[in-house]
Amino acid sequence: MKTFIKDNIQAFQEQYQDRGRLLISCPDQPGIVAAVSQFLFEHGANIVESSQYSTNHEGGRFFIRVEFECEQLKKKEGQLEADFQEIAQKFDMRWNFTYGYHIKRTAVFVSKEPHCLLELLWEWQSGDLMTDIALVISNHEDSREVVESLGIPFYYIPASKENRREVEQQQLQLLKEYKIDLIVLARYMQILTPDFVAAHPSRIINIHHSFLPAFVGAKPYERAYERGVKLIGATSHYVTDDLDQGPIIEQDIERVNHRDNVESLKKIGRSIERRVLARAVKWHLEDRIIVHQNKTIVFN
Amino acid sequence: MKTFIKDNIQAFQEQYQDRGRLLISCPDQPGIVAAVSQFLFEHGANIVESSQYSTNHEGGRFFIRVEFECEQLKKKEGQLEADFQEIAQKFDMRWNFTYGYHIKRTAVFVSKEPHCLLELLWEWQSGDLMTDIALVISNHEDSREVVESLGIPFYYIPASKENRREVEQQQLQLLKEYKIDLIVLARYMQILTPDFVAAHPSRIINIHHSFLPAFVGAKPYERAYERGVKLIGATSHYVTDDLDQGPIIEQDIERVNHRDNVESLKKIGRSIERRVLARAVKWHLEDRIIVHQNKTIVFN
Amino acid sequence: MKTFIKDNIQAFQEQYQDRGRLLISCPDQPGIVAAVSQFLFEHGANIVESSQYSTNHEGGRFFIRVEFECEQLKKKEGQLEADFQEIAQKFDMRWNFTYGYHIKRTAVFVSKEPHCLLELLWEWQSGDLMTDIALVISNHEDSREVVESLGIPFYYIPASKENRREVEQQQLQLLKEYKIDLIVLARYMQILTPDFVAAHPSRIINIHHSFLPAFVGAKPYERAYERGVKLIGATSHYVTDDLDQGPIIEQDIERVNHRDNVESLKKIGRSIERRVLARAVKWHLEDRIIVHQNKTIVFN
Amino acid sequence: MKTFIKDNIQAFQEQYQDRGRLLISCPDQPGIVAAVSQFLFEHGANIVESSQYSTNHEGGRFFIRVEFECEQLKKKEGQLEADFQEIAQKFDMRWNFTYGYHIKRTAVFVSKEPHCLLELLWEWQSGDLMTDIALVISNHEDSREVVESLGIPFYYIPASKENRREVEQQQLQLLKEYKIDLIVLARYMQILTPDFVAAHPSRIINIHHSFLPAFVGAKPYERAYERGVKLIGATSHYVTDDLDQGPIIEQDIERVNHRDNVESLKKIGRSIERRVLARAVKWHLEDRIIVHQNKTIVFN
Repeated sequence: MKTFIKDNIQAFQEQYQDRGRLLISCPDQPGIVAAVSQFLFEHGANIVESSQYSTNHEGGRFFIRVEFECEQLKKKEGQLEADFQEIAQKFDMRWNFTYGYHIKRTAVFVSKEPHCLLELLWEWQSGDLMTDIALVISNHEDSREVVESLGIPFYYIPASKENRREVEQQQLQLLKEYKIDLIVLARYMQILTPDFVAAHPSRIINIHHSFLPAFVGAKPYERAYERGVKLIGATSHYVTDDLDQGPIIEQDIERVNHRDNVESLKKIGRSIERRVLARAVKWHLEDRIIVHQNKTIVFN
Repeated sequence: MKTFIKDNIQAFQEQYQDRGRLLISCPDQPGIVAAVSQFLFEHGANIVESSQYSTNHEGGRFFIRVEFECEQLKKKEGQLEADFQEIAQKFDMRWNFTYGYHIKRTAVFVSKEPHCLLELLWEWQSGDLMTDIALVISNHEDSREVVESLGIPFYYIPASKENRREVEQQQLQLLKEYKIDLIVLARYMQILTPDFVAAHPSRIINIHHSFLPAFVGAKPYERAYERGVKLIGATSHYVTDDLDQGPIIEQDIERVNHRDNVESLKKIGRSIERRVLARAVKWHLEDRIIVHQNKTIVFN
Repeated sequence: MKTFIKDNIQAFQEQYQDRGRLLISCPDQPGIVAAVSQFLFEHGANIVESSQYSTNHEGGRFFIRVEFECEQLKKKEGQLEADFQEIAQKFDMRWNFTYGYHIKRTAVFVSKEPHCLLELLWEWQSGDLMTDIALVISNHEDSREVVESLGIPFYYIPASKENRREVEQQQLQLLKEYKIDLIVLARYMQILTPDFVAAHPSRIINIHHSFLPAFVGAKPYERAYERGVKLIGATSHYVTDDLDQGPIIEQDIERVNHRDNVESLKKIGRSIERRVLARAVKWHLEDRIIVHQNKTIVFN
Repeated sequence: MKTFIKDNIQAFQEQYQDRGRLLISCPDQPGIVAAVSQFLFEHGANIVESSQYSTNHEGGRFFIRVEFECEQLKKKEGQLEADFQEIAQKFDMRWNFTYGYHIKRTAVFVSKEPHCLLELLWEWQSGDLMTDIALVISNHEDSREVVESLGIPFYYIPASKENRREVEQQQLQLLKEYKIDLIVLARYMQILTPDFVAAHPSRIINIHHSFLPAFVGAKPYERAYERGVKLIGATSHYVTDDLDQGPIIEQDIERVNHRDNVESLKKIGRSIERRVLARAVKWHLEDRIIVHQNKTIVFN
């Protein structure tokens, strides 16, 4: 199995070795698209996908995502970024190039319930998540077998309110060691410290088991049952210091009715959580998300 | 137009003149279904639809809705209810018979935005709402023309925080005069007094323009925009004294994205509000809803 | 009412007087976006929305829709199109500029069932359809009252298999007289001749009452009932010579079950038809659709 | 893993040892519900769930599913069925009792693509499929590892048009040996002979990878792509002699657009197929389906 997956990652690298992506956010003004597309054309890059958005009604900010093919991209990377400085300054851009040959490295944090982890592993094995799942960290041993059977290192770090700082020291050490680009909290039921969160801006994705902002905090299915809602949902968001208040990436819902008790709400909820988290992670890995003022622009 | 609609109501009465419905809520125990179905059989009533539900996991309450055909129902009504007392007492039932020849009379309250009112009128004209829309009350003149063109009395009663009691006196007078069974708040943007609400338990249906309990209170679309949600919704519920806390009858949502501003959220929201309210009203009119402990059992 | 609507159209024209749209389809090659965006920038046009698509996998065709703001657009229209010839030739483009001050003129054809017509009128009154509904043609008198009450001319032209050619002569005369840009068949149950269709390529939109290609042809709800499907749908498409085979613009479905008979399928179906047709018409009016090889690219 | 699952089955048997279900189909007439519920009451059975349906508009057939609790059910099974004969004859019923302690035994047939098999295994491990997956039969070796790791026997039987009869002999032998109640074709790409199908009426469930009756037969995703549909679907149905014409149990769809090529349609389709098949199998296992005139009544 492991061999197959490493083949998968190598196949990604080869397929996308000349593929680059450029994300830009800047004040809106005429000429941005012309400047960017002219720049790419002159550097031998052919645009294969492009999406843009501007906030006409609120002060005018412009966002664009461009995906391009460029022969020998790896050799041109340095020159490309150096040359882009001029345009970036002229238009006061926040910008970021990413490259297909650099496969992002992901760490998955999980507690007892495995369904979100399993969905990510499934999508990954199917070639739908363009990432290297480099390690799994858990405060329970339950998922060790399935994780290790795929050749992924599994680290068991018991966690509680009391030892939060020490636990995070171990986790940070591992993240550094494995050169992790993205942390996915796949139903990891521990709260992270502000320091940990601050160190990974827009790089920790969480799944919350409710349609936020309904049922912020603990036990959302119990509270949904109490309230008698007719739909339940799940929300994937970037983690910030405010509990369940970070920028929302994706949400979905399913219909329930009076026959559903807390158990069946949880069961239905699990299938929503699985797909909502998988979508959010996929979009992040493909550089489809720009965060702006606690909201996301998702070019999907 | 008016003639057509009154024909419509008469057609309902004829089509359903021998149709009865029985709603029961009682402690769960063996033999309820046998007793009820035996009773109906002995009284010449043939069950055409039946739904039941019991809360196995929480103390055991049993709910059933039976729809039946019974020749000469109008003549038997008194006897039926008298005879049923025995079963009702034996099983400690809360129960209610309704009869197809009694078409419920509805009052619609509306403010400036007409979309929910218009949807109800549309469904009603199409023969999908088994009711007599007896009058419309509004604190704006905007909807007078369309309402009166259908032959429905329209009452303009300006309303504000200051004159709430006097306004409600006029409204109560009209509700009494027109023998109203159901009040529908079709985006009526005024808050009702506790006295008014208490006088109509489970007989006032409101449409709230968010997926409750998210965005309780005012300006839900503005707050949904601020929060950056990826779905917006609407909720229809019975009105109780707690603002937006009454038993939820129906909810629905639609997908939105970063391109949607407050205006487009409102536009999308209107189409959700229309259908959510129309469904809730329809189910109420067909006696498909039982309220139990601030939740609804909807036999649809 | 009529006054209000004509105000509406004028408001559109004012709001969008400097708004232009450019639709392009051409063989894919590097430099297209750069050339087009540079051209618009040099002509004082600021891109407010842009979407593109290329068929990487099948011979490489490139499609783009650009919406732009340009001061004094009406005065520049001629120059813009003349200057664009050079780029168009270089890249072998099929292209089309449209202008916000030119509000498209629509003719609605309807038979007995009014629901699709009424939805279009509703959306139009709400300001959601950027068009002038210039006339309604019907082979029944049923909708005359509502149409004329909005100040729209209504033409009753009885139609049957026998008099198809003569009927179409009258219709063509009216379309010419009213300078119609778009024909919407809002449940118009007559078949058009090949000549009529050929004269309006990608300019006749039909609503078919099934999820095509299931239930092509007559009586789709009856056949859906017979087959026992668990979902029913509707399809909006451009009309071509092949019955129900034209390019699909939009489809939607709703869930049904064994309790639904043909009547209730039709009732549910009507609400699907309404929204599917309204979306397709809206996208056409906003120039969001490119037809290519009997399929649509919809930039929505 | 295997131990856990066998525990699971034993847990089912214990939890549902006193649970029975009764499915009835008969000509509609007054008194059926009274007779059945009186019968169950007298035999000490308490109704926990009941659903009924009658075809008012077409000759009057009545269908009911009753789920009941009855102490010492296993001992009473013979008596119950013997006593029920009288009612059954009186009302001319087709009827069937099933018992919670008899866990249905399922055989899964699969070819190369594992996604539907994996979903069933997942749902089964989660305790959502009340069955014993007794064996898996495949014409490819691909799924052997995952199946055997769960302790389920895996039989590799190469199949082709040429050796169909011999292959089916082997399969029938295995079905007999393992006392199979239900056969699930989880993307088994071979056609079964009429004899094989006739031997298992309403006991073979297939998943077809389109929204039937659209795209009957081979290569539905390719044809959906060619036709340019905006939604794709999947259909689960009982297998009959007519290819893809058997009674439909469940269908679902997802939205696609012009960007989706055949590959991405297949990918999206796989997730629809997974959930549609899992739902159909679940409903069958819980005796929620009655087949009548090539349609299903699903009491879910």
